[in-house]
Amino acid sequence: MEALGLDRIVSRQPADPAIGTHRRVVIENVAPEIDEGRVEAKRVVGETVVVEADIFCDGHDALSAVVWRRSGGGDWSAQPMALTVDDRWRGVFEVIELGPYFFTIEAWVDRFGTWRNGVDKKIQAGTAQEVDLVVGAELAAAAAARAERGDARSLGAIAALLADSDASWPRRVMAALSSEFAELSDRYPDRSASVTYRRELPVHVDRLRARYGSWYEMFPRSTSPDPDRAGTLADATARLDYVAAMNFDVVYLPPVHPIGHTKRKGRNGSVTAADGDVGSPWAIGDETGGHKAIHPELGTEADFIEFVERAHELRIDVAIDLAFQCSPDHPWITEHPDWFHARPDGTLQFAENPPKRYEDIYPLDFESADSERLWLELCSVVDCWIERGVTIFRVDNPHTKSFAFWQWLIRETQRSHPEIIFLAEAFTRPSIMHKLAKIGFTQSYTYFTWRYQKWEIEQYFTELCRSPSREYFRPNVWPNTPDITSEYLQYNGRAGFMIRIVLATTLAANYGIYGPVFELGIAAAREPGLEEYADSEKYEVRHWNLDECEEIREVITRLNHIRRAHPALQQDWTLTFHEAQNDQIVAYSKTNADRSDVILCVVNVDPTNRHEAMIGLDLDALGLSGDRPFVLRDLIGGGRYVWNGPWNYVELDPVAFPAHVFAVDQPD
Amino acid sequence: MEALGLDRIVSRQPADPAIGTHRRVVIENVAPEIDEGRVEAKRVVGETVVVEADIFCDGHDALSAVVWRRSGGGDWSAQPMALTVDDRWRGVFEVIELGPYFFTIEAWVDRFGTWRNGVDKKIQAGTAQEVDLVVGAELAAAAAARAERGDARSLGAIAALLADSDASWPRRVMAALSSEFAELSDRYPDRSASVTYRRELPVHVDRLRARYGSWYEMFPRSTSPDPDRAGTLADATARLDYVAAMNFDVVYLPPVHPIGHTKRKGRNGSVTAADGDVGSPWAIGDETGGHKAIHPELGTEADFIEFVERAHELRIDVAIDLAFQCSPDHPWITEHPDWFHARPDGTLQFAENPPKRYEDIYPLDFESADSERLWLELCSVVDCWIERGVTIFRVDNPHTKSFAFWQWLIRETQRSHPEIIFLAEAFTRPSIMHKLAKIGFTQSYTYFTWRYQKWEIEQYFTELCRSPSREYFRPNVWPNTPDITSEYLQYNGRAGFMIRIVLATTLAANYGIYGPVFELGIAAAREPGLEEYADSEKYEVRHWNLDECEEIREVITRLNHIRRAHPALQQDWTLTFHEAQNDQIVAYSKTNADRSDVILCVVNVDPTNRHEAMIGLDLDALGLSGDRPFVLRDLIGGGRYVWNGPWNYVELDPVAFPAHVFAVDQPD
Repeated sequence: MEALGLDRIVSRQPADPAIGTHRRVVIENVAPEIDEGRVEAKRVVGETVVVEADIFCDGHDALSAVVWRRSGGGDWSAQPMALTVDDRWRGVFEVIELGPYFFTIEAWVDRFGTWRNGVDKKIQAGTAQEVDLVVGAELAAAAAARAERGDARSLGAIAALLADSDASWPRRVMAALSSEFAELSDRYPDRSASVTYRRELPVHVDRLRARYGSWYEMFPRSTSPDPDRAGTLADATARLDYVAAMNFDVVYLPPVHPIGHTKRKGRNGSVTAADGDVGSPWAIGDETGGHKAIHPELGTEADFIEFVERAHELRIDVAIDLAFQCSPDHPWITEHPDWFHARPDGTLQFAENPPKRYEDIYPLDFESADSERLWLELCSVVDCWIERGVTIFRVDNPHTKSFAFWQWLIRETQRSHPEIIFLAEAFTRPSIMHKLAKIGFTQSYTYFTWRYQKWEIEQYFTELCRSPSREYFRPNVWPNTPDITSEYLQYNGRAGFMIRIVLATTLAANYGIYGPVFELGIAAAREPGLEEYADSEKYEVRHWNLDECEEIREVITRLNHIRRAHPALQQDWTLTFHEAQNDQIVAYSKTNADRSDVILCVVNVDPTNRHEAMIGLDLDALGLSGDRPFVLRDLIGGGRYVWNGPWNYVELDPVAFPAHVFAVDQPD
Repeated sequence: MEALGLDRIVSRQPADPAIGTHRRVVIENVAPEIDEGRVEAKRVVGETVVVEADIFCDGHDALSAVVWRRSGGGDWSAQPMALTVDDRWRGVFEVIELGPYFFTIEAWVDRFGTWRNGVDKKIQAGTAQEVDLVVGAELAAAAAARAERGDARSLGAIAALLADSDASWPRRVMAALSSEFAELSDRYPDRSASVTYRRELPVHVDRLRARYGSWYEMFPRSTSPDPDRAGTLADATARLDYVAAMNFDVVYLPPVHPIGHTKRKGRNGSVTAADGDVGSPWAIGDETGGHKAIHPELGTEADFIEFVERAHELRIDVAIDLAFQCSPDHPWITEHPDWFHARPDGTLQFAENPPKRYEDIYPLDFESADSERLWLELCSVVDCWIERGVTIFRVDNPHTKSFAFWQWLIRETQRSHPEIIFLAEAFTRPSIMHKLAKIGFTQSYTYFTWRYQKWEIEQYFTELCRSPSREYFRPNVWPNTPDITSEYLQYNGRAGFMIRIVLATTLAANYGIYGPVFELGIAAAREPGLEEYADSEKYEVRHWNLDECEEIREVITRLNHIRRAHPALQQDWTLTFHEAQNDQIVAYSKTNADRSDVILCVVNVDPTNRHEAMIGLDLDALGLSGDRPFVLRDLIGGGRYVWNGPWNYVELDPVAFPAHVFAVDQPD
């Protein structure tokens, strides 16, 4: 094997430390810092960034530290940090603009503070000497030289008094320890040997919808009120009132583009389509157009824009699918064959995961020699839909396309459109899901779909909401998707749906369902052991009887309403699990920042049996005092309970309803 | 406050990713990597470095990865890595030279492997096509172009056969899947779009003594056999046989330099010395010399060299104290007053921690304008003692001197003397102790001295031996030091000493005692509540009756012998705690790498009461099978036990002996 191309290594062992350096302060373990500052911490407008670091120096000197921060286009400004415990310092700043922010830390030996601490102790011990006050005079004079005029005069007067051995000792001591001297000194610190952290750390600020939203996915072609014809964008527009009535915030449409004819899939994914089979919306493109076009049977660009405008009237964001792959009939196939993988026999390579073949789809070649033009074209697809009012892109299988491409695309897009949200639909290995979040995806699909048991729910959501990855990985949880009818839903009937919708809406600030199958309680799979829906909308037009979904719909409507009314549920970071002495009962809470809003959920995750448990609350996490009763209002069942102390009894029968969603109040 | 000096920031937000990049492989979470490669992982000669990383790319392609490594002066060479679980890869290399090593990782999409996996599955499914073999022919031809002559011919032949549609299909399939084709392809991979990890990561290789050694600290001036005079270096040399007989590996001497007269401390640390008081060896320097001089009453340079030579004959390393501070009489005070902190009244600042004053000591000013000359002079002190045969420096209070200085000094020294060991005597906050280890100290003092209870021993040694900090922080544990007679030793008599010496010798590969007070069982403090010895050797000459220390000395001798005979005890990384159903009984094991040597210790940490416990062994950690009995030989008590399965009974009476140190054997 040839020798290592050393030129590829960006950073070498740093040079040996220079002899005689005077900078003594160390700044380490800065948080939030992800992958050496290559990855942005994520926030939404109005949130704070709590900056922490280990800051110390040799010896016993006092230190001072500040956080410097700026928005992408703004100026630097500083905020003091405070010591918490051991050598850990903390500072906080708020983010108020969309887009990038940067911060760093500066710290220095606080000569004044060191001197003052010492003199204070010596004076109390009666061992202070003339020279101690003269040292203070020198510090005051030095600060005066850095100060503005009025302050300089005050510091000069202090210096003169401290140095004046004819003045009375008590007067000089009072001046040395005065708060005036301390405040003036802090205003003009000696930063000449200060240390600034080695890098600016990035924060990316999104709008609120990035942190919190209720999503509803639906196929426009199945929204027709007339069973004799397929639905159109106009029908989908009419359906928006139904979606809005359930209190959803986002409506997400699978691809609305023309669908290929060649190798089109038939019903239930059959490899040969029958006459009249409509094909999969993810086999994108035919002779009428590709990723910028709208399927002629769905309508026109004007119809799409009307859909968007109606959604916006209802305060609903429109998300569309970004599925960067092509049917064999997509215009790019003939116009840009070099954007695809060519085979030696001159054909293009269809998608495959041997021995499986997906001949209705051709993957793009991100290593194409013409990749620059390809990337620009894909970026223009995003721009085109933003023009039409789309504000959210749900990206199909991003993990099968180049990471560098997504990073570039998201940065390019958000540079001019910082309000745009990208959701990564990657159900794959953890390192890859995290990588996608790190390179810029606003939100990520999760393993929630398959986390059924108490222990795995607690473990997974503790990871999502409490581990350092929460800085960049924002979960969006889905009980079902057009690709996944989980075994839990398939086999557990009505109670299964109730349990999963309560968990999704209260564990995660971002969640979504694929409807109307969800509210209809439909979960049958094509075959036992599969997660593929029987007679899936992916391959055919369906007509749904929305009158049949009243009960689940009411619960969804209620839960989405509770989410809107309770800021505790609009974020993930305060999630706390409480003890519940039963393996089938999960108890958890969320609060808002000042704990004025407290939601406590208790869920029986066994859809078949009644369970009871003693619940052991972490009262601190709830902001409750242990010595007075508190009131729980069940926001779904409507009951009202008075509890006292940490241990209280709960029983839950899935035949009635498998969960309590409590608002918790402690009367004054 | 003035604006941030942006020039101080070394690294900014990295540039946006370039459009069209083809490098798809990601290498993340590399281990061992400490503080972005600014800190060296520590090893000793003959150890391995297990390199791990998350390596992945988009899509489903196969990957290949290698570890590149070189010694400081050597050439790069590569070793293959293998996938372990999910996306975690692992490679191993051995370090055989003292000094620096570097490693990095290169990974690439394995086009041949991807193709071969796919073709294999397609052939089994009966769906392979002509074009699949032609793709293989192209890969073979491309590998041939990279190959050496003989291999190029073989690959060319494979390419021809795969492309030959007239040849028989079975013959072509055999060639496609042949191990010959796989091996040849792996030998000449296509690395044109490979990714090399962004940095070379450093490893520092010490000699074995860095990882393992038994230390004995003694004051030369207390080694006189004649109670009417103080000891000399010649007496200390004579005492070495006694030290060697106890199987110690290192003898460590407090400072042997001239001691200041001005403000000399008296007995028991009194601020006024009486006539004839000898002063503290740490108040270094008088008119006869400073840090390079030897106290005239101890002897001459020749005496010191004789001491070192005798120690080396006994295979004992000599460690001396490096205490960079000066008595008021040190020559530097007058020759280089600018190396000290000047006060406005023209005096120099003595050491103080207000309101405490240490007027017999002046600290050096590492921020002196003349710091470069100061650093060089201090470095020459180290060189001087290396010339005289010293191989280990125990550094006094390094945390009160500049971190940058130590980093520079240790690098400078080890560049020409890679065998030199530096032990940091810092008993301070965790972040500072870790910082000293990170900047180059070979070993570090620990909190062991104050960890008495079972839970705190388990927690602390799990941190030392199992957390990532073990890569750079090598513990050296001391039950006592001249500054610390712990309350545990003060109040627990003989059993207390036995418990602490067993724990020190078996929990930590590096340990030391301050003798002969330890083997004499002396622990009385100057006052209740203090950890300062009564009539401490720090301030006076003592005469010890070594006949009185037989029992503890025998145990130390035995334990040091066990440490020499058992490689399991010569390292820390395999330490495993086992369940013991009693809060006063600690059970733990160590093994060597191949688990041919297994030591199991069970210690009763209650020095006053007999305790019993069921011990629940982690048999896997011990390399034992659960279905056959195994034999325990008590290397101290001499008993022999046959145990079976994980649960076994132990009782320990501190009146007899508070611990078992078992060698564990499983007969074949």
